[in-house]
Order: sequence, then structure tokens, then C-alpha cells
Amino acid sequence: MAAKPTTPESRPAALINDFRILADIGATPAGGVDRQAGTTSDGQARTWFTTWLRMHHFDVSVDAIGNIYGLATFVPGAPYVLLGSHLDSQPTAGAYDGAYGVLAAAHAAHRLAAAVDAGELDPTFNVAVVDWFNEEGSRFSPSMMGSSVFTGKMDLATALVTRDTAGVSVGEALDTIGYRGSDSPPTIASYLEIHVEQGKEMAANGTTIGLVESNWAARKFSVSVLGDQAHTGSCPMEDRHDALLGAGLFVARLRALADEFPAGLLHTSVGQLTVTPNSPVVVASRVDLLADIRSADEETLAAANQRVQAIIAGIEQEAKVEIVLTETHHWGVQRYQEAGLQLCERVLSGTGLTHARTVTLAGHDSTNLKDVVPSIMLFVPSEGGISHNTREYTTDEDLMAGAEALEQILREAVAGTDGIFKGSFTAGF
Amino acid sequence: MAAKPTTPESRPAALINDFRILADIGATPAGGVDRQAGTTSDGQARTWFTTWLRMHHFDVSVDAIGNIYGLATFVPGAPYVLLGSHLDSQPTAGAYDGAYGVLAAAHAAHRLAAAVDAGELDPTFNVAVVDWFNEEGSRFSPSMMGSSVFTGKMDLATALVTRDTAGVSVGEALDTIGYRGSDSPPTIASYLEIHVEQGKEMAANGTTIGLVESNWAARKFSVSVLGDQAHTGSCPMEDRHDALLGAGLFVARLRALADEFPAGLLHTSVGQLTVTPNSPVVVASRVDLLADIRSADEETLAAANQRVQAIIAGIEQEAKVEIVLTETHHWGVQRYQEAGLQLCERVLSGTGLTHARTVTLAGHDSTNLKDVVPSIMLFVPSEGGISHNTREYTTDEDLMAGAEALEQILREAVAGTDGIFKGSFTAGF
Repeated sequence: MAAKPTTPESRPAALINDFRILADIGATPAGGVDRQAGTTSDGQARTWFTTWLRMHHFDVSVDAIGNIYGLATFVPGAPYVLLGSHLDSQPTAGAYDGAYGVLAAAHAAHRLAAAVDAGELDPTFNVAVVDWFNEEGSRFSPSMMGSSVFTGKMDLATALVTRDTAGVSVGEALDTIGYRGSDSPPTIASYLEIHVEQGKEMAANGTTIGLVESNWAARKFSVSVLGDQAHTGSCPMEDRHDALLGAGLFVARLRALADEFPAGLLHTSVGQLTVTPNSPVVVASRVDLLADIRSADEETLAAANQRVQAIIAGIEQEAKVEIVLTETHHWGVQRYQEAGLQLCERVLSGTGLTHARTVTLAGHDSTNLKDVVPSIMLFVPSEGGISHNTREYTTDEDLMAGAEALEQILREAVAGTDGIFKGSFTAGF
Repeated sequence: MAAKPTTPESRPAALINDFRILADIGATPAGGVDRQAGTTSDGQARTWFTTWLRMHHFDVSVDAIGNIYGLATFVPGAPYVLLGSHLDSQPTAGAYDGAYGVLAAAHAAHRLAAAVDAGELDPTFNVAVVDWFNEEGSRFSPSMMGSSVFTGKMDLATALVTRDTAGVSVGEALDTIGYRGSDSPPTIASYLEIHVEQGKEMAANGTTIGLVESNWAARKFSVSVLGDQAHTGSCPMEDRHDALLGAGLFVARLRALADEFPAGLLHTSVGQLTVTPNSPVVVASRVDLLADIRSADEETLAAANQRVQAIIAGIEQEAKVEIVLTETHHWGVQRYQEAGLQLCERVLSGTGLTHARTVTLAGHDSTNLKDVVPSIMLFVPSEGGISHNTREYTTDEDLMAGAEALEQILREAVAGTDGIFKGSFTAGF
């Protein structure tokens, strides 16, 4: 409840108002959100979203991996222009990542539908808004699960039996929150997504709308360091097979690997690391960690991958441990369709919004979708480039500008007048 | 159930038989035990032990921190010779650590009581067997909690509100397993403990009974590395404040610190390390870890402690993180009473058991007890020195020899004829 009565002039725009309501679901004391996939707070955000869709006259359907669709059907039988992002978050995340893209898509689609109703636009395609299940991959690995199943890159059955560290499966989690659906996903003609940049280039360059032309290549690894449990007090140093020492050396050397290449060319990271038995006076018997290396240049990534193997061999000798490395995920540098980029440039040139081509370092659901239909990925600036952090921030003006750009591009895609942006894909489940 | 009927000849000695029964409580598939303090399996081991005590005519009492005493009173009003160890274990431990000491004490006390009943020995003191609560400190930190409260080194109220990582307090855990008692601990004259060596010196030297003359000095630290959460894909390397990098460097450099001193002089370890938020594609905002450094030489330990401070300052700069180090526990090199060592040497010279003076690298409840009453700490060999590991092993022959040595020494302590081994301590709770 506001302390002062709200006047019409002081009311925020509908998009900003909705953004604030959504940011209260799973809100953390530090000002961010915690809405990991399939949790109670993810379920609450989903119910808020399906309620919003129904209030705005969308038909709601949910597929077997928990993707939610809000359908506005103008031309029965025609494919849908799909647009959206994800409502799930990292455990201590900012409020923008994913949520903004879903809301901007919903508002753009709603205004588009109003324009069709008013006879301002003659649609070739229908429009559907989507909330993809588990984009973050923090509770259930791998990330981008809902869009991977939709695009056939991951098997539905495999996804449903994936378990979190507490042993709960994706299927069980979806049942618990009431979002394991049975509806067929819509047949789609194209895909649009908008997201915060998660970098600081656009703000530095004065760009309001980023047009993503390609993604960085990435390799993700699961690494198990196997040692031998011992007493930290009594076991002589030379007799130890300390799994945590092996893991510590790996973290330090994977970081140093980035410095072997020109600045900015290679990103290396370890984000998750679990020690067994993780007891104060026990030399660890095992450490499991997840690492990733990323580059805009595939040759750099291949060279770095070779160096990772050498680093591991060195640590095995030095720490007297065994290290098992498994590549869990791998994608190359891939381009978004040039036709989509040109459509955006043509549309935006008429709006007065500054725009420039850019690349995405992080993965997005559009990374999957662009492989099956023509896809467009837009960015709005992130203040300071802060991401996966409660301090993530984008100004209201940039949020509004992005939604406006998305709506203008959606109009072109739905009208289908361009002639070059008409794919067709039907999910196989 | 044994597949073959047991014949009297094939029956193991009572001590070995009891050891095997006890090792089945909280047994792990790998052949060790998991009986962390205050868990269901610790409760089961305790109930097995109190049952054993009552069947063997001991009076059982339990104090407010869950220490269990089995009392055999020969001289009402006289202090007790206390002997025992601990039934709790590390999460994936061997079956010997602590449990052997409790059983050997129980059997020695039972045989001593029989000798008194038979008029073979004229007691000056009574005898009490003890199972100290939470020696390991793996679930509730710090270690040696029961004996620390008994000796007044830790406040009872502080101990009871200590919480495990799930938020359960010591008091609640003791209530759950039914072992928060209200009995006063016995007034004691001296303390005896026997334990597996957790080192490989005795086996190498052909020593059956080790007489501990001092303990290594140790400093234990709680270390928090504070960084800033970010996206592993999109955050440039130079903008990161990666708490896990800081922790990885600390683990590696604390290990390297041991090599700055002559071999065997300094032990350094990190056994527990917890990452926040510990998500695959998130640069960690915080890592908490527990470290310890140990040496037989206090000057070495002081020099190493200075180096730890310098290492931390270096990592803070290099990884752009803040590190908060807190010393949680600190003990110096301390000697066990010379009178006790001489008593042991005199008694053992008449038994044919090989014996030699030694030191303990690990902490034990006797480390606390020796500060309030004359105390004796005995070791039996550990095969390969393997400790805090399911492969921990001591031969049945050495287990029997240790119990025999303990009983002979107990007879002297209870008779009180020595004249120099008569302390008096009454716990203050």
C-alpha cells in the first residue's frame, strides 16, 4: 500500500508497474529475486503471469516441460510469431534477467493485438508470448532446458528425470507447482526476444537497442577431483591425496589461463564447487565442480580447451589426485539471421532510438530458437554490466524503449510483409 | 546371522566381538561408519553403550552436554579414575577412531571391577567409563565439545546453542536422541585414554603401545572470502571479484606454505569449503572455509601464522576480494604429566608389550583432561597411518594388546599406590 495516494500523473507506465509487481515475487532482502526453476516462487511468478495473460485476453497453454504460452490467434491455422524469455532466476539474482523479456513481450503482444483489433494492421501470422522453463540451470542442469526440449535439442524424458542436489526431479518439481502441462506447443514462424545486455558496452557507447548478430562460443565442463580422505592433523603432507588442493589449483590455473590470451578474448570460470566430505579436520576425498570457458573466437576456444587438458594433467601429478573432466555442453559461434538484423535496422531507423549490432557472451533461449526459425535478439543496456547479482539495474526509460522497439519489430513480423522472415517449426512433443 | 555355527574356539574375544557389533551401528556401504554427533546413529551407538554398561553392572549417568558415564563405585565418596573416548565419528569415517577407546576402557573397567570384587586389588579410587559428546566437531564446531564443557574450557550454554549447517542446535539434537541429561559429572582423580595412532610411526618402529608425551601445537581458522556475484559468461575477467578464485588461491598457497619449512615440521590444511551462491554460471560472491596449521614446534607455528597473514594480503590484492580471517581455536605444545609416563613405563616393562614415547598430531579429549587432572594417553598402531577414512585399520592383536595395557595401568591408578597420580577435579556444571 502506497503511503500517498497515487495520482494519474505519478502512476508508472503499465510495463514498469507490472515489472515492480513481478519483482516482489521471490524478492530477497537485498533487493533481488530468488526464483529458481520449479520452486514455489517460480510457481507464484508463473501464476501471476498466466493471470495477466488471461486478463489481457490471451489463451494460455502449458506444454510437457512447463513452458507457458499466451496465444493471440488472428488467423486460425497460421503459425505464430513467438516472443518471450524466462521468469526463473539464479538463487540470488537481480530482477531484470529474463523477467524483463517476458514482460516486454507480453506488453508488445497485447498492444499488437489491440492494433489488429482496431484494424490498423493486417496479420499474416498469429502471436504467442512464452515463458521458457529453467533458462538459468542453477537448480536443474543444463540451462535453457525448456527451449532445448522445444527445439528438439534435448529429449523430454531426459529433462523430466533430471534431479536437483536434493534428489527432486524436474517432473516432480513441475507437478508440485502445478505446471507440468499436456498442451502441444504452437507451430511458430519466427522468434523474438529482448534481454538486458549483462555487459557494459552499450551504456559506454550510448546505444539504447542492441541487435545481437552472434553469440560467443562456449564449452562447459563437469570436473571431479578424486583424492583420499585423511586426518588433517596427523596425515603427513607428502602422504596426502587432497582433492580440495587439486580443485584449488584448478580454479587458480583456469583463471590464469585467461591471461595467456589477449585481454577480453577468453573468459574462464568455476561457479559451482562441492567438497566431500566437507568436514573441518578431514582432507577431502572428492571435489566436484562446474567450469566454463568462452570466447568470440572458436580457434581461441579450441586452443584454451587443449590447455585445460594440460592443466589437469599437471595437477594430477602435483596434487597426487585423479581428475575426471567431462564436457557437458558445447556451442560454437553462431550468427542470428541477417534478414532479422536488417529488418530491425530498417524498423529502428524510423524510431529515433539509437541502435548498434552487438554479440551476446551469455547463452539465451534465442540461441536455441535461432537454429529452427529466423530469430531476433535485442538488448537494452545494463548499468555497469552487473549481472547475476541483486544490483543488476536498467533504467525505466531503457526498459520502455526496448519494449517499444520490440513492438515495432513484432508488427513487421506479424504482418509478414517483409517476405524474408517466415520460417515454420513445430515442436516434436 | 553367521552362515556357519560359531564354535567356542572360533569365537572372537569379547572386546573384538563388541567392536564388530558397534561398527555395525551407522555402518556405511564402504565399510566405515557415519555417526556424527547427535544424529540418529550416534543415539543408537549410545543406547548400545548404556545397555552394555548396565549389563555389566555399571551405574549410568548422563550430564547436561550429553557425556555418558558408567560408574563402578568401590569407595563411596572417593574420586573416580575416569577413562574413555568418544563414540561419535566423522561423516565417512573408519570404525576405530574413538569407538575403540570407549570399548577398551569399558572392558578394562569391567575386568578391574571383577578383580576388586575378587579381592585381588584394594582400591583407593572408584572407576568411571566415559563417552565424550562430539569429539569430532564435524557437525557441530568446535571439536572436543563434551570434554571442553567438562573441563570448563567451554561454557555449557554456548555449547548448547551451537548450530549445525541445517540450523539444529546441540541442545535440540541431544533432546531428539534422548541424551541431554541432568546428572552431575563424577569428581575425578585422573584420566586415561587409548586411541589408534592415526600415524604410521609405531608400525614402522615395531611399537605396540605408544605413550603420548605431548601434543602438536595447532591454530584453527575460519576464513571468509568476500567477492561480488557476476555472470560467468558476460563479466569481463578484469571486472571480476571472484570469491572462489580467492579461496582457490588460499588453498593452493596454504599447501605451498608447508614446503617453506623442513619436511614434517608444518601441516597445513583446508578441510571444509562452502561456496555462495554455488551456481554453475555465477561468479561466487562468498566462500567460507575452515583451515588449520599444526606443528610440534611453537616457533614454527608462529612463523607460519605470520605467513598466513601475508598470503591473505597478497590474495586480496590479486583476486580483488576481501578476506576475513578469524582464529577459532589455538593450543600450544603441551606435555602430559611425567608421572603418568613413568607409571606406564614401569607397568608395561612387566608385560612384554613393546612401548615407546610418542607425540599426538591430532587433538583428543585427553588434551583437555590433562589440564585439570594427571592424564595418560596411549596409542595402538594404525596400519599405514590411515585416519578419518573408511580404510582405517588396526589388527585385532593390537586392539587386544592395547586393552591389556590400559587395564594394567588402570589397576595402578585405582590402587593409588603410586602416590603421585592423584588429582581431584569436579566439573562446574
